[in-house]
Amino acid sequence: MNNKNAPRSVVRRLPVYLHILDNLIANDVEIISSRELGDETGFTAEQIRKDLAFFGAFGTRGTGYNTSFLREKILKIIGLDEQTGIIVVGAGHLGIALTRYNITKNPYVNVVAVFDVDKNVIGEKIIDVGVLPISEMKKIVAQHAVKVAVLTVPSEQAQAAMEKIVESGINVIFNFAPTKLHVPKGVCVQNADLSIELQSLIYYAKTG
Amino acid sequence: MNNKNAPRSVVRRLPVYLHILDNLIANDVEIISSRELGDETGFTAEQIRKDLAFFGAFGTRGTGYNTSFLREKILKIIGLDEQTGIIVVGAGHLGIALTRYNITKNPYVNVVAVFDVDKNVIGEKIIDVGVLPISEMKKIVAQHAVKVAVLTVPSEQAQAAMEKIVESGINVIFNFAPTKLHVPKGVCVQNADLSIELQSLIYYAKTG
Repeated sequence: MNNKNAPRSVVRRLPVYLHILDNLIANDVEIISSRELGDETGFTAEQIRKDLAFFGAFGTRGTGYNTSFLREKILKIIGLDEQTGIIVVGAGHLGIALTRYNITKNPYVNVVAVFDVDKNVIGEKIIDVGVLPISEMKKIVAQHAVKVAVLTVPSEQAQAAMEKIVESGINVIFNFAPTKLHVPKGVCVQNADLSIELQSLIYYAKTG
Repeated sequence: MNNKNAPRSVVRRLPVYLHILDNLIANDVEIISSRELGDETGFTAEQIRKDLAFFGAFGTRGTGYNTSFLREKILKIIGLDEQTGIIVVGAGHLGIALTRYNITKNPYVNVVAVFDVDKNVIGEKIIDVGVLPISEMKKIVAQHAVKVAVLTVPSEQAQAAMEKIVESGINVIFNFAPTKLHVPKGVCVQNADLSIELQSLIYYAKTG
């Protein structure tokens, strides 16, 4: 797609819109206004219009968005129109859980392999995806043109694992290790923080 | 704190501000402008000012926010100033990973117990937190005034587990089971979607 310089905050909302559209289409909804999209997402209608206008004109004033058309456009903008190969590095509890989740519930990515240093887990299968030694990462990444890695090793191993991932040719890393990584230029690391969403929920717990 | 009717989108950003402030304070930064907070978070300065103004006047025009003062205020607004007891329901890979994460990396919550139906895991310890049978949930929740549950059971068990949680007196649930729950009135369920963040990263993978 054309515009690859959208702010991170805008890009982060695109899959949210995508999931809402998937649900609407499954329920045979053909047209949705930005106001209704707002009700579904919790963002304002204005925010949604601004976000989408960043990439083009996808709606009709006074009518709204065609759900299937908008879904196709968002898939293209993100790059989810072609299936993306990913790897998971770290076959601990979180790595196994995320691998299973992505195999069964995320139709837009293809988990190509899981990597670990532990001989006890190498050779195991997570559903139908094999756990391989780190030494095979470079070969597998090249073979399957993998561009994204999910990093789920313990904090103290995260820096070394990140360097192996970058050496293998990947420059987008989704890091679940709760530690700050020293990242080479040109590499995009997104730190997942599993505590933020939970902390925001405490707000509602205290209401009652 | 006073205002308990903030939009979900605002509430969700509060812990993000909190984490940035924690880091700034650790680095001896005493004052920060909304613009600088914007640079750290990816939100606009205007958004940050609007979010915080929802709860009161915490900054000084032309100067910015005192980091320690703002941190204390946000802790109080969310309700993180007193430690909150939570339970985790489901001691599978994801439940174990989230329990460990919250014990070691989330200072604002206290994991009181983990629950499961599987006799093979009941009695186990996750770090120092015991895995208990569901039958003990009500008692434990009352004893520790638990108000939030993290739900990590398989999809097909999620509805029944949610009902047990609600029966035990909890009305805020952070649901990781990728299924839609039929929720009684007055219960707040936040569905975690582990695929959205990963999908948004694909955008950056395709750039190269």
